[in-house]
Amino acid sequence: MESVEFRPTKEQFVYTFGGHGPAMAVKPGTLMQLWSEDAFNHTLRTTADLSSEKVDLRYVNPQTGPFYVQGAQPGDTLVLHIVELKPARDWGVSAAMPFFGGLTSTDRTATLQDALPDTTWIYHLDRAKNTVGFQARFGDFTLELPVEPMLGTVGVAPPAGEVRTSLVPERFGGNMDTPEMRSGITCYLGVNVEGALFSIGDGHYRQGEGEACGTAVEGAMDTTLIVELIKGGGPLWPRLESDDSIMVVGSSRPMEDSWRIAQLEMVRWFQELYGLHQLDAYQLLSQITKVPVANVVDSNFSVVVKVAKELLPKSPPFGGIHADLRSRVAAL
Amino acid sequence: MESVEFRPTKEQFVYTFGGHGPAMAVKPGTLMQLWSEDAFNHTLRTTADLSSEKVDLRYVNPQTGPFYVQGAQPGDTLVLHIVELKPARDWGVSAAMPFFGGLTSTDRTATLQDALPDTTWIYHLDRAKNTVGFQARFGDFTLELPVEPMLGTVGVAPPAGEVRTSLVPERFGGNMDTPEMRSGITCYLGVNVEGALFSIGDGHYRQGEGEACGTAVEGAMDTTLIVELIKGGGPLWPRLESDDSIMVVGSSRPMEDSWRIAQLEMVRWFQELYGLHQLDAYQLLSQITKVPVANVVDSNFSVVVKVAKELLPKSPPFGGIHADLRSRVAAL
Amino acid sequence: MESVEFRPTKEQFVYTFGGHGPAMAVKPGTLMQLWSEDAFNHTLRTTADLSSEKVDLRYVNPQTGPFYVQGAQPGDTLVLHIVELKPARDWGVSAAMPFFGGLTSTDRTATLQDALPDTTWIYHLDRAKNTVGFQARFGDFTLELPVEPMLGTVGVAPPAGEVRTSLVPERFGGNMDTPEMRSGITCYLGVNVEGALFSIGDGHYRQGEGEACGTAVEGAMDTTLIVELIKGGGPLWPRLESDDSIMVVGSSRPMEDSWRIAQLEMVRWFQELYGLHQLDAYQLLSQITKVPVANVVDSNFSVVVKVAKELLPKSPPFGGIHADLRSRVAAL
Amino acid sequence: MESVEFRPTKEQFVYTFGGHGPAMAVKPGTLMQLWSEDAFNHTLRTTADLSSEKVDLRYVNPQTGPFYVQGAQPGDTLVLHIVELKPARDWGVSAAMPFFGGLTSTDRTATLQDALPDTTWIYHLDRAKNTVGFQARFGDFTLELPVEPMLGTVGVAPPAGEVRTSLVPERFGGNMDTPEMRSGITCYLGVNVEGALFSIGDGHYRQGEGEACGTAVEGAMDTTLIVELIKGGGPLWPRLESDDSIMVVGSSRPMEDSWRIAQLEMVRWFQELYGLHQLDAYQLLSQITKVPVANVVDSNFSVVVKVAKELLPKSPPFGGIHADLRSRVAAL
Repeated sequence: MESVEFRPTKEQFVYTFGGHGPAMAVKPGTLMQLWSEDAFNHTLRTTADLSSEKVDLRYVNPQTGPFYVQGAQPGDTLVLHIVELKPARDWGVSAAMPFFGGLTSTDRTATLQDALPDTTWIYHLDRAKNTVGFQARFGDFTLELPVEPMLGTVGVAPPAGEVRTSLVPERFGGNMDTPEMRSGITCYLGVNVEGALFSIGDGHYRQGEGEACGTAVEGAMDTTLIVELIKGGGPLWPRLESDDSIMVVGSSRPMEDSWRIAQLEMVRWFQELYGLHQLDAYQLLSQITKVPVANVVDSNFSVVVKVAKELLPKSPPFGGIHADLRSRVAAL
Repeated sequence: MESVEFRPTKEQFVYTFGGHGPAMAVKPGTLMQLWSEDAFNHTLRTTADLSSEKVDLRYVNPQTGPFYVQGAQPGDTLVLHIVELKPARDWGVSAAMPFFGGLTSTDRTATLQDALPDTTWIYHLDRAKNTVGFQARFGDFTLELPVEPMLGTVGVAPPAGEVRTSLVPERFGGNMDTPEMRSGITCYLGVNVEGALFSIGDGHYRQGEGEACGTAVEGAMDTTLIVELIKGGGPLWPRLESDDSIMVVGSSRPMEDSWRIAQLEMVRWFQELYGLHQLDAYQLLSQITKVPVANVVDSNFSVVVKVAKELLPKSPPFGGIHADLRSRVAAL
Repeated sequence: MESVEFRPTKEQFVYTFGGHGPAMAVKPGTLMQLWSEDAFNHTLRTTADLSSEKVDLRYVNPQTGPFYVQGAQPGDTLVLHIVELKPARDWGVSAAMPFFGGLTSTDRTATLQDALPDTTWIYHLDRAKNTVGFQARFGDFTLELPVEPMLGTVGVAPPAGEVRTSLVPERFGGNMDTPEMRSGITCYLGVNVEGALFSIGDGHYRQGEGEACGTAVEGAMDTTLIVELIKGGGPLWPRLESDDSIMVVGSSRPMEDSWRIAQLEMVRWFQELYGLHQLDAYQLLSQITKVPVANVVDSNFSVVVKVAKELLPKSPPFGGIHADLRSRVAAL
Repeated sequence: MESVEFRPTKEQFVYTFGGHGPAMAVKPGTLMQLWSEDAFNHTLRTTADLSSEKVDLRYVNPQTGPFYVQGAQPGDTLVLHIVELKPARDWGVSAAMPFFGGLTSTDRTATLQDALPDTTWIYHLDRAKNTVGFQARFGDFTLELPVEPMLGTVGVAPPAGEVRTSLVPERFGGNMDTPEMRSGITCYLGVNVEGALFSIGDGHYRQGEGEACGTAVEGAMDTTLIVELIKGGGPLWPRLESDDSIMVVGSSRPMEDSWRIAQLEMVRWFQELYGLHQLDAYQLLSQITKVPVANVVDSNFSVVVKVAKELLPKSPPFGGIHADLRSRVAAL
């Protein structure tokens, strides 16, 4: 398997989907080893570092990429299989940023109230136990939590010439912030521009569903992935596949619209997979979907609609490429 | 253990939380065996029965109850432990009701479009395999799905003299439609009126998260539960506890508000359990909560915020009553 | 014209729509002179009176009524023509109540932030100039504002046995909080129960659209109205008519749903008035409606959709009863 | 007064805010005469032209511009005074586009229902009477309506390198679709990039508040405006001033957030104008604001918060530049 490595310099970070030429061109089938900086650009390193002083919300979630995938054309399906995610530092960081997060007013849900106190938490990684340690800032409470690495952002360039901040989740992927974006997942994204121009970033050492305070255990990440391309068949919204499940991620506001988007895309997917009438797909899915919320804090909210494969007749999506990728990985 | 049975006649069904005198008075500690009719009042029995002809949305979710719990006063905590849920018929039913459900316009999300075709699905129960069978209405597709019984509605009388339809989930519980309301769960509800006046109903033989089409596999249900009472400590919003998790259910619109409610109530619960500062509780929960959506179809949307006990230091809520109830059940 | 007066004692106040027997029965055609207490139950009388100490949100908006309208049956149209609204005291009061209002988090849009400072403003009425005086609480700024009296709540008993707090605006009217509910208006409400059981209250000496802080210039009010009844034809949502305009009030959450409800009801009304196809009504209304928001602070948000009569062919709604009522008033 | 004219060729149309070099550079104080194409790119000319066949939603609202304003720096205030808007054709057009508009499901509020019938309406202009004629498509009904020209889109390049479609209203202005954007208005926009790079387009011969069906009476427009620049003081959200009123436009989803944004920005503006404490500004505005909805159909919804100058002490905003511009216009 052809393989490449890419570790951006600080000057190479980009903060948008679209709007930048490629950092590198890759052939479908390439194994990529990518390093990404943490969401805060490595500005928060101790609990004394405050986001209000060190973080500019216009320049967070530095992206590694974009990568030009040879042969990718609008309408195609970009396939990204995450082989492995490994914390690249021995600590992660989280923060309650003023007017950012789920249990605070924001620039959108605007109120006259004061911000919550700007607070930073540092989580130390224990590689032997594979845990990160929560340490209360206003007391002595500590708790070891399993490391469960994931990527907050995976996206391609938007259509129609738009350029969007790496804070937004949308039809093109982006800052979906779902814990489902973990090792072993295959992510399918519709290609909007020649070369797809995908990028990744915003590694989380772990994150609860909803990402309540607005930030996960943020950390630099070593990502190994395989990039593939399917001609045509680009899905309207991001689709995910694991060994156990198929998923769609919808992103909009209010949150019921995120759900509607994902649920409807899953109806369409079921129609493709099983030749069902849309009403039958709607009915069947009503009885079998899981709906884990991804984030309620970004500029769009993201909701995942998920179905366990074990409930379903075998009908491997996208020509069975997920299983194929898994076996390629096994052979490495 | 004292025990009672109650199987309402059709005349005894009620369709509201509040507004009715008790069907029966019970002492805390009583084991109750309750039968509930299906959400459609047994009007949909074949695929030829259409909801537009047979169902009056003002009179669905017939409740079994209300029950007056001796000693319950406003501010107390009603404890309902679901011992067992058993389908009371050999078939369940689901329907795409005109202008009701998640992927259709409704009387609230009002549009000029035509309704989806009024369609009824019948699911046959295989008690040996413990499955219900999905049978497509517009094709030949069939699928056996595990029976996973749950109650759609569990609620008490509202405060301030309000009387609410059994279609609404709210602070007082009600039509939360979460698959978490299954055997083995303990539900904690704040008492608003003397006697609590709780009722149950809307049994589902299984349901996906979100209850996308608006109805689950609806069926009459035999419920065994133990009622208990804790003086004082009534939670603001419904709390649930299983052997594995603690949960809060928030219900409002838009859906992000349902989440905010549940997440904030979980912050408060963590402050109670662990003496955490609210910012530390907010931070910790941001990294560990699961957020399975319950329904996106009722008059309020319901979202569950859930934390796995295995991540947490032991600190049994409500004085450890859940474990106590489990051991009482084991001794039956 | 037959006429009655009613000034409730404190014991006669009710705080719900539905749930109470009639305070009085009236015949259609009766002129009613009604006194209503202010929204805070007369508990806030000086700037030293704080809502957090004196106001119980479960018992605000005391209603004058309910009134049983002879002959009113479900499906009929209750017609309330507001002849005159006169401030019944020489001062009004407004307050920023903790966690209530539009620019603060609330029990629904729940956050961890502190409440805004509980603050009360007293407005003195100058009857000669017909103004109320704003006096800053945190400075010397003063401003005289025109008195523009309106009623916050006008409603009937809900259907299906529900009882709702007088804080909620809904299909049955209620706490719509629109400045359009002023002298000269005719309000059409669908009757849900025998006798209609309507009530009024929550007088405002003036209010901005949106009622941003959650409370208007609240004051006791002398209301003169004529009650009428049209058999059948009960509208789905509250309709209003003035000499200049016809209006619909939609109430739900999120606010776009309030608008959808009102806009769709206006489409239906245009179909009735002009025999238009729904698409033509939709198109025409897209070019001529005004959309003044009523409130963004109640348990549902209310939005008014309004059309100027001068743009339209003459087609008096509800059999021209508004003009008839205006001439009856002129003849008084 | 220096003056320029600009009439873009079809190749010069742009469909985004940001992402394009300037069509022309202008000095502050310049009178500009601008022609803009209709929102549909002149593709819908008869009722037989259907949007589903002729309109690509990625390329609507063609912009005239962008214009580089000499001396404009991030943080400055761009001032655009609309001197006159004149329909540039003798007909306008509106359409119910499939899955676009307020009373239909959309790509966001996604449902399984069929689209409304794709329908086009042509409005003929009577320049003598200054009316446009509505002609029903499903009947004989006709109605002459006053021409009330306005611009749907007025915006500058976004911050942080974003490029946004001309369909979106946002902090940078854009597709706000408010009827307040008429002759005589002064629009204040915060500058995000050197030169501001503003553009205009999407002329409407008239539009109801809410723009219910998604499109107004769309038409090519001759716009005369004066561009000015104030160093510093760039508002966070678009502010408008007429002879009678001051206004803020908030744009987001759900619609209550659009309102919160605009109401809070007006609180800030009142603090600037009158030195009020934020709570006093909040209270005062609660009693005097008008809240006319702008659109409930774009990718963000826009809500206007508006205050009549006659209620207020004189305190001309932005150094009185509106009155100055009005006198410059009078002197032309």
